[in-house]
Amino acid sequence: MSTTEADSRLETRIEADPALPTIVITREFNASPDRVFTAYTDPDLVVQWLGPRRLTMRIVEYNARTGGAYRYVHVENDGTEYGFRGVFHEVRPQERIVQTFAYDGFPDSVSLEKAVFEDLGGRTRVTTTSVMESVEARDAIIKSGMQDGVRQGYERLDELLAGRESDKGDADSTEELRTDGKGLNP
Amino acid sequence: MSTTEADSRLETRIEADPALPTIVITREFNASPDRVFTAYTDPDLVVQWLGPRRLTMRIVEYNARTGGAYRYVHVENDGTEYGFRGVFHEVRPQERIVQTFAYDGFPDSVSLEKAVFEDLGGRTRVTTTSVMESVEARDAIIKSGMQDGVRQGYERLDELLAGRESDKGDADSTEELRTDGKGLNP
Repeated sequence: MSTTEADSRLETRIEADPALPTIVITREFNASPDRVFTAYTDPDLVVQWLGPRRLTMRIVEYNARTGGAYRYVHVENDGTEYGFRGVFHEVRPQERIVQTFAYDGFPDSVSLEKAVFEDLGGRTRVTTTSVMESVEARDAIIKSGMQDGVRQGYERLDELLAGRESDKGDADSTEELRTDGKGLNP
Repeated sequence: MSTTEADSRLETRIEADPALPTIVITREFNASPDRVFTAYTDPDLVVQWLGPRRLTMRIVEYNARTGGAYRYVHVENDGTEYGFRGVFHEVRPQERIVQTFAYDGFPDSVSLEKAVFEDLGGRTRVTTTSVMESVEARDAIIKSGMQDGVRQGYERLDELLAGRESDKGDADSTEELRTDGKGLNP
């Protein structure tokens, strides 16, 4: 099945409890947990999907292991940069990733993010729970428009898992299989 | 002023908002922010005060810098061990420490802890905010009796900052100045 076909299972659900300072994001992918987990932890793959389509990602460090750290920059076409960093509390292969997350623009607003990978038999459900210090801090993140970036990032991940280049504005490129060995096809 | 005298400023305030999954702990210390901060980050000093009096602390790793990790064990007299670990998201000298925290017994219940150091002019207020994923997870930590351990740890820190040995059950030892160079006297 092509991931570009309508598939309600691939809908991204983003929930922000009015009373709790959390964001819970649920998404299924048409790939096994090991392939999805690899796409979350191998920097050569992360750089191909994380974030909205309009931004280019530059990874400074991505040491996705327990006790490791990460730092990356999202770059607009006009050169504007948005930096993000954090540390990995735990990276448990094919099961869960727990990490801190902060945007350089608000370094004192740190969130704790947990991604849990569930094997649905050939497919994988990823549930990401972010918790912030206050409902106000959570609402500020929601207001920043993170939802679009999350949804587009997951669509790019669909394409990566299907063995296609992320769509960077060239319609043809989405139909081509990767040939540089960095794709995720078995 | 002796820290063993009654001093309402040295009262430990522990707040658990009924609606939010947080614990906020406020405590003042009769020492400057640089001395308090050092007591929080130098493993040779941390080992002298962190935790309740009845437990002995063994530090496996305590790399209190941005991107560093820590792991320590609290040991009962009967040999029972309680292990804790986490990573330091940010260690900003004399200002703040942001770290993850998990007990080995519940490794999937991770909290994010922020300690902020305020200079009160010779004294220091430390405000520690812990945020968990749910109110239930927070209540479980409160029910574990962490408050006593926190209060006793801060009293031991008072003693360390005053240049005295932590009271390990020997009443005389609290009156002795440290002579091994590990004390915090100026």
